[in-house]
Amino acid sequence: MAEEQAQTEVKQQEDSEEQVVTPWVAHAGEGQTGIDYEKLIRQFGSQRIDGDMMQRIESVTGQKPHHFLRRGIFFSHRDLAGTLDAYSSNKPFYLYTGRGPSSESMHLGHLIPFMFTKYLQDVFDVPLVVQMTDDEKFLWKDLTVEEAHRLAFENAKDIIACGFDIEKTFIFSDIDYLSTEPSFYKNILRAQKCVTVNQAKGIFGFQDSDCIGKISFPAVQAVPSFSTTFPKIFGESKDVQCLIPCAIDQDPYFRMTRDIAPRLGFHKPAIIHSSFFPALQGPQSKMSASDPTSSIFLTDTMDQIKNKINKYAFSGGRDTKEEHEEFGGNTELDISYQYLTFFLEDDEKLTHIKKEYESGRMLTGELKKELISVLQALVSKHQERRKKVTDDIVKTFMSYRPLTFRAAE
Amino acid sequence: MAEEQAQTEVKQQEDSEEQVVTPWVAHAGEGQTGIDYEKLIRQFGSQRIDGDMMQRIESVTGQKPHHFLRRGIFFSHRDLAGTLDAYSSNKPFYLYTGRGPSSESMHLGHLIPFMFTKYLQDVFDVPLVVQMTDDEKFLWKDLTVEEAHRLAFENAKDIIACGFDIEKTFIFSDIDYLSTEPSFYKNILRAQKCVTVNQAKGIFGFQDSDCIGKISFPAVQAVPSFSTTFPKIFGESKDVQCLIPCAIDQDPYFRMTRDIAPRLGFHKPAIIHSSFFPALQGPQSKMSASDPTSSIFLTDTMDQIKNKINKYAFSGGRDTKEEHEEFGGNTELDISYQYLTFFLEDDEKLTHIKKEYESGRMLTGELKKELISVLQALVSKHQERRKKVTDDIVKTFMSYRPLTFRAAE
Repeated sequence: MAEEQAQTEVKQQEDSEEQVVTPWVAHAGEGQTGIDYEKLIRQFGSQRIDGDMMQRIESVTGQKPHHFLRRGIFFSHRDLAGTLDAYSSNKPFYLYTGRGPSSESMHLGHLIPFMFTKYLQDVFDVPLVVQMTDDEKFLWKDLTVEEAHRLAFENAKDIIACGFDIEKTFIFSDIDYLSTEPSFYKNILRAQKCVTVNQAKGIFGFQDSDCIGKISFPAVQAVPSFSTTFPKIFGESKDVQCLIPCAIDQDPYFRMTRDIAPRLGFHKPAIIHSSFFPALQGPQSKMSASDPTSSIFLTDTMDQIKNKINKYAFSGGRDTKEEHEEFGGNTELDISYQYLTFFLEDDEKLTHIKKEYESGRMLTGELKKELISVLQALVSKHQERRKKVTDDIVKTFMSYRPLTFRAAE
Repeated sequence: MAEEQAQTEVKQQEDSEEQVVTPWVAHAGEGQTGIDYEKLIRQFGSQRIDGDMMQRIESVTGQKPHHFLRRGIFFSHRDLAGTLDAYSSNKPFYLYTGRGPSSESMHLGHLIPFMFTKYLQDVFDVPLVVQMTDDEKFLWKDLTVEEAHRLAFENAKDIIACGFDIEKTFIFSDIDYLSTEPSFYKNILRAQKCVTVNQAKGIFGFQDSDCIGKISFPAVQAVPSFSTTFPKIFGESKDVQCLIPCAIDQDPYFRMTRDIAPRLGFHKPAIIHSSFFPALQGPQSKMSASDPTSSIFLTDTMDQIKNKINKYAFSGGRDTKEEHEEFGGNTELDISYQYLTFFLEDDEKLTHIKKEYESGRMLTGELKKELISVLQALVSKHQERRKKVTDDIVKTFMSYRPLTFRAAE
């Protein structure tokens, strides 16, 4: 029943004439072909990652920014300068990201924040906490508690396969961690006392027909932003800052977190936002774990990848070969090209493909072939790494323990 | 701020023309001198404990019912027959009660449910779980998490001093138990998924200006009614029934619990309700832990008890000795007499006092003297027992462990 109610509300928000982005709804405004990210930055009041910020990142990290930054995939932030300042002056900080474990296998879109988080962990050499919101998925989806909890462990394997540092990474299921560390619930209570039902409705679009679990859940996702939620890792110090890499639909949680942080004596977390990863059928359609044709899954075989791209990847090419050669392909609409911006690291090669495709010299089939080879390599490497993630390794990542952590100098 | 909001809402409910009883408000209807308990039974849809039920209790327990039952102090119930049936057919059941630890010292009114629960534990020889809602008190009151948590331990000493069986009693702070037993949070989530914001508003009078912690808290108080919340005590069986002795203002929590229990595959808990314990100044005024003249505290000295009764206990006597001797005292209004109905166990003596006072032969001073000696004995014995409650004893009562428990035969 809760599931039905959720669907009703999502429906209402999806019918809105305005652009609506919440953790559960990504709806372009009436008549729009996709999310308007510039507008979203204005709606949310975040900052664009501009040229100055890119230079700052390059100078602080001493290397060219990640291609997700160079290509505007991570495009928006809050207080990133503060994190870079902290890093420059040897103050400690940590990363926090998460996943809602609602399906057995993750798809390419789910990888984006984790690939980027891995990059941040590498360049800054900092600890990372990864929240698996099994409680949230139980509340929102038609899942039992046990199933949501089990999926947290399954999904953790895919996250670990992204290459995180076992000495510096703590992955936790909410259900498990709540029954382990009292500071987690204490901080949840503190956060819950700061937010009214009114405010939660305003931020998340909740309604009176929602269950009481949903309305109080935002506090659970908020408090891993506060270092005292992890005393075994950060001690009792409130002075460890937090940077959250996430897709921009999660921003409402962290806008709320930033509102309440000063009232609780905590640092506001900094945030860095990615745009959405498009469905194979194009940005207007939704990727769905229950529709295997909507995305490439990390469990797909090499043949499935090839067939899905060839069959479903929306093409920005022209209707006939002749037209295509005359007018060229549209890389802004072409999903294969879009996917390459995510997964083909080589800038020169990408520029070359863009030029060739837009000029009409490269046909859709060739473009798809490029993408297929990139994705087959990516997914097969992921599958190999995942195979090596034993139960013991998962247990270590998910056990609450001190992490190697460069303290203030 | 949350505190101010709570006060605003309480004010609104207290201005109501209707009789309003919630866990936070006990307001007699406009122009009424006290709560109308018959009306409350109709409002809440519970059952009066009638003559048949009293006989049933006597026959099942093999002894005269507790004077709280004989005198209508525990006056209402839900499904008590089911508990008695279970007991008669050797099916296991357990008791659940609780306390919100918001002040250092408890008063006489707080003792009532615990004295009665002690009686139930004795006659039925069953396990008892006692919830200390430190989380609730943090959310509702101007207390820090640490202070609410500390008060849970302080108050536990007074509860233990009531004489509960250490082999059969588990007292837990919500904050501690949540970070101990995963089944607690799992059942909270299950309960939270079953109750909409709308329903919580209807049952408890919550408003949009309340914090999100309050609106989801009822699930925390609900789930100790389900035996699977305590797997170390009851195993995984859903088949252990629960009986909740409590003041009637707690009924909304357990009405909600009974609504959701069948949907979760649990037994509905049975409930037995007490009326309110009146303030010294009379049933229209409110007992308050912050007003030391409003009640007798378990920490009061013998002199304080004497002085408070003499000075503040509202008298049902006449204005002059002559009038009193002519018309007699009013035992229904007289707080000293009312308190004796709670604490003087001897029926014959109580009947005698009533006759003497109503006839005018006994003056208010003498009546107060009787009460003073009863309360001084009660409180000094309590204080002696409390002194013997060492930290180790508290630790044992509050450690999560198997209890001695007569399983199904």
